[in-house]
Amino acid sequence: MASHLLLPRKPRKKLLKATAMLDKQAHCASMEADLEAHLKSSFPTNPPLVVTEPMRHLVSCTPKSMAPVLCLAACELVGGRRDRAMDAACAIQLMHAAKCVHGRLIGLDSSPLTYSPAIELLTGDGVFPLGFEIIARNRELDPEIGVRVVMEMTEALGGMVEGQLGRVEGGMEEEWVWERTEGRLCACAAACGALVGGGGEEVVESVRRCGMYVGMMRGSVGLERAENLRSRALELLEAFHEEQRAAMLSLMDMCFHYGFAS
Amino acid sequence: MASHLLLPRKPRKKLLKATAMLDKQAHCASMEADLEAHLKSSFPTNPPLVVTEPMRHLVSCTPKSMAPVLCLAACELVGGRRDRAMDAACAIQLMHAAKCVHGRLIGLDSSPLTYSPAIELLTGDGVFPLGFEIIARNRELDPEIGVRVVMEMTEALGGMVEGQLGRVEGGMEEEWVWERTEGRLCACAAACGALVGGGGEEVVESVRRCGMYVGMMRGSVGLERAENLRSRALELLEAFHEEQRAAMLSLMDMCFHYGFAS
Ligand SMILES: [Mg+2]
Repeated sequence: MASHLLLPRKPRKKLLKATAMLDKQAHCASMEADLEAHLKSSFPTNPPLVVTEPMRHLVSCTPKSMAPVLCLAACELVGGRRDRAMDAACAIQLMHAAKCVHGRLIGLDSSPLTYSPAIELLTGDGVFPLGFEIIARNRELDPEIGVRVVMEMTEALGGMVEGQLGRVEGGMEEEWVWERTEGRLCACAAACGALVGGGGEEVVESVRRCGMYVGMMRGSVGLERAENLRSRALELLEAFHEEQRAAMLSLMDMCFHYGFAS
Repeated sequence: MASHLLLPRKPRKKLLKATAMLDKQAHCASMEADLEAHLKSSFPTNPPLVVTEPMRHLVSCTPKSMAPVLCLAACELVGGRRDRAMDAACAIQLMHAAKCVHGRLIGLDSSPLTYSPAIELLTGDGVFPLGFEIIARNRELDPEIGVRVVMEMTEALGGMVEGQLGRVEGGMEEEWVWERTEGRLCACAAACGALVGGGGEEVVESVRRCGMYVGMMRGSVGLERAENLRSRALELLEAFHEEQRAAMLSLMDMCFHYGFAS
């Protein structure tokens, strides 16, 4: 079962043993499948179709980010069950989707619009708060963690806007933009996964840094930089139990060897 | 001291005694002044000027909604101190401002753009989450109330998007649109004010209805409908202490007699 997250790109280094790689692919694919099912069930059912249909459609055809799966892996890393992070991961995916919809409207992505610009703009506006709603209505989540997750997500959104503005105005390094968009989203996703998984302050900060390294690993950074980021992430991971690291390691290896669809 | 919220429109009925009206004006103006000062101090100081300057500018020139002041009045109505509701009122004002910025981009308002469309779109995207951030970072607020307020705000944003979509697609009654935009924002603002002021479930629902009536009172509804809404609001207000009703009554009377700028 191939992971939708993965593009058939040229691997950076010679492949791991084929069987080990298939295990990692399967691990990532299973997280993705869980996430997609949860996302489908998280849409509001009350609003009329005029709002929810474009929302569903635009979210479903958004290019994937690795941040939501990273959120699940971060939760497992700190010893939490994957399903505890499902809402936060969905919220991250919705933020990413809304950003992509609005980015396309202002020419940061050349794919054609599905609806009129007005509908695409309002659909993005409808999708952004849906992530916060999913967090806020989760009654199994300690409210203190809930407001922390909301704050993390607003900070990541601030980074996204800054990164997109940098692209609009031009003159910024690609890595500057990447750090503020995918990098900070991945850091946020990892921190939120660790928070809902029950990690304490120090653990959350360590997992956040690990998320940032993994988020920065792909893209335009080149092999040497990727190897440096990977070894820094691996160093952070040493503090965690071996059996809890599996998802994060799978994700990191897949990301390192293949890169992710942006 | 005239209230900025008030347009010099033709009063619906003969004026109250001039002195009584001046008191009510002063009451509204004092709430507004508190709110504006708090809003100025609530902007993030970390992001670079490229993000915060358009945010400040666009928020400051947004047409006023009565919802933020209603949030303060609702807090006083349930016996809370006005300053407890200041963050929620600011968050409501920011949501309203972001809606107006995006509405102008898609032609729902004919005033000219200040910046390029891309910057106005991203500025709106930056302002929407700021409201949630203000709620989430308030450490004096019980987190359980914090997530309730976040949920209320996401629901109001859903209504806004629905109302704006109705305007874009056309064919909807003006009151249908008004209910989903200003009406639901006012209901949300009142409910949030009651929540942070310490109101229980039943009180919150009663204050929410009162907010909806006040929100629906102005605009295109005509005198008979306005009188009907006013008497329903007054009926709800009877359950509250007389000295706690003053702000809400001032707001309602000003709204009834003059209407508000939208
Ligand atoms: Mg708090």
